[in-house]
Amino acid sequence: MRAYNFSAGPSTLPLDVLEEAQREFLDFSGTGMSVTEISHRNKAFSQIVEEGERLLRELLHIPEDYAVLFVQGGASTQFAAVPLNLMHNGKADYIVTGNFAKKAFEEGKIYGDAACVASSADKTYTYIPDLKNVPFRDGTDYVHICSNNTIFGTRYIEFPETKATLVADMSSEILSREIDVNKFGVIYAGAQKNLAPAGVTIVIAKRSLIQSPLPLCPTMLQWKVQDENGSLYNTPPCFSIYMAVLVLRKFKKEGGIKAINEINEYKAGLLYDFIDNSSFYTNSVVKKYRSIMNVPFVTPSAEQDESFLKGAAKEGLVSLKGHRLVGGMRASIYNAMPVEGVKALIAYMKKFEKDNA
Amino acid sequence: MRAYNFSAGPSTLPLDVLEEAQREFLDFSGTGMSVTEISHRNKAFSQIVEEGERLLRELLHIPEDYAVLFVQGGASTQFAAVPLNLMHNGKADYIVTGNFAKKAFEEGKIYGDAACVASSADKTYTYIPDLKNVPFRDGTDYVHICSNNTIFGTRYIEFPETKATLVADMSSEILSREIDVNKFGVIYAGAQKNLAPAGVTIVIAKRSLIQSPLPLCPTMLQWKVQDENGSLYNTPPCFSIYMAVLVLRKFKKEGGIKAINEINEYKAGLLYDFIDNSSFYTNSVVKKYRSIMNVPFVTPSAEQDESFLKGAAKEGLVSLKGHRLVGGMRASIYNAMPVEGVKALIAYMKKFEKDNA
Repeated sequence: MRAYNFSAGPSTLPLDVLEEAQREFLDFSGTGMSVTEISHRNKAFSQIVEEGERLLRELLHIPEDYAVLFVQGGASTQFAAVPLNLMHNGKADYIVTGNFAKKAFEEGKIYGDAACVASSADKTYTYIPDLKNVPFRDGTDYVHICSNNTIFGTRYIEFPETKATLVADMSSEILSREIDVNKFGVIYAGAQKNLAPAGVTIVIAKRSLIQSPLPLCPTMLQWKVQDENGSLYNTPPCFSIYMAVLVLRKFKKEGGIKAINEINEYKAGLLYDFIDNSSFYTNSVVKKYRSIMNVPFVTPSAEQDESFLKGAAKEGLVSLKGHRLVGGMRASIYNAMPVEGVKALIAYMKKFEKDNA
Repeated sequence: MRAYNFSAGPSTLPLDVLEEAQREFLDFSGTGMSVTEISHRNKAFSQIVEEGERLLRELLHIPEDYAVLFVQGGASTQFAAVPLNLMHNGKADYIVTGNFAKKAFEEGKIYGDAACVASSADKTYTYIPDLKNVPFRDGTDYVHICSNNTIFGTRYIEFPETKATLVADMSSEILSREIDVNKFGVIYAGAQKNLAPAGVTIVIAKRSLIQSPLPLCPTMLQWKVQDENGSLYNTPPCFSIYMAVLVLRKFKKEGGIKAINEINEYKAGLLYDFIDNSSFYTNSVVKKYRSIMNVPFVTPSAEQDESFLKGAAKEGLVSLKGHRLVGGMRASIYNAMPVEGVKALIAYMKKFEKDNA
């Protein structure tokens, strides 16, 4: 039986995409080779990379003066790549709204004067700081944010106005809602939540900003080098890119990001409404900043949380355990989570509440 | 029809492994999830990572005081990781025997006093320099070699005796022959040739050497951090690791590296013998240093090379084009290339010679 997989990442993928990949797993595009075996220089494959870039540009309305890259190492590698490509004045501001935002900030400090200019740590990251009153410093190379916080279940609903280049880690929400790329100098995202199997990371970067990586930047972390080589400077993570393209084709067919966002808002709305109308379950995020991707919640006790998780797994509702930093449960309901999955979760929550309240 | 795929990387994988992966593509280990969807923290998956490490230790006789890591970014990322983890005195020697050895050397120069102490560039990298007379310098942090040269088709048949730590890029020959890991401080290898789909890189590093990465080393490039986290510091390239484990299980079942090496020697012997007995085809590598993984060869003219490649593709013998730096043809006959594939290539070569000599 196929599980409803609420994992925060790697995450559920569209069943029809998985079936398509399975069907042609031994013979990619009539080449007589698996897509896992084919040379990245083979035209049948390099066309896939080009199509991936084209589809991302189209779906996210990425202007021509931005590079669109497929790189390796996850967002965690980009935490270093950001300062190594951008920190020319050795100074950057970070807004810390969760675990990964903090990790990015810590990495920034390795390379220069990185400052945390706003944080929601005082209330366990349950909100996004007021963006009107952030004490941004002068002369910084960039301001870094994490637009959706996987562990704590918050998201930015608007983005800060900054003099410096705005850089965003969008790993847990890329392609889930429309964004204005022009507001950002750099956007990056591990693909293993909304887009593809783990192993590929998307970087969208304004070309004028990335022409002078710092002298100590590893060649592989230089966005300029990746851009000049069409993401084929070395052997890319071919299978993950291929899967991303199958998913992007589906997103396009289904009406693009606007249509996907409507479904995401609907799914999240169902779950939050249910939680808010229950006196048994709690989500402690400030409503305005609730993520539509990651929904953490708890029952009245840690014992009941544990019992909830055990029962859920038996019903085929899996990977609902919250991150150890917050405990309880977390339902990650990315693009590929069907409405039926959310409804099945709510049905189980109802039943569990009835049996345990 | 399944092609015989002679690509230098990504490369052919064992058909039975591909079939197994295809069979369980929608339901990994009875979880109701694809292995491309499952959380890397799920026990069903973390066991795969542990099994991969265990199998590598067993097959390569890796001592307990070495870390065995699955990382991202390919050997090209390790070109930077090597100095960033090891270059405490800011000084390293490189032996340059080909394109990737040279790239590693160039990357080393970013971080300190890297010197090329021996090279075979004078004869288009068709040999390995005499290792008895290399002017290694005193006080270096390491000596770097590339043990098999994919583009030029050479390999080390013995390894240099060095006072400094010996570091080897074994990307194009890992698991193809027995090696004494104790001779090396660090071995690294992109997996996309002998082991798995592109996206995962193996690092084998003596733990005592990797405890103090340089202060500017990105966290993700710190071998110590990867070791402390069992290769799960961040989301790993799960699918490539899973495929690597299927391949490693097969290697073990088939008798380990000694048995695999015998087949590899046999396959390479068939091809080199045929070339040496032909007056039509030429391989210009010094015999002693011929790679058993990558066999470059030419016909008497560039026009005939082109015609050879076209005809070969029609016969299902694909990705035989030589690297642009050397032209002609190159047959990469990694572990997963069946003996029948080499025989089919030789049969075609015979026919082509007869028709065109």
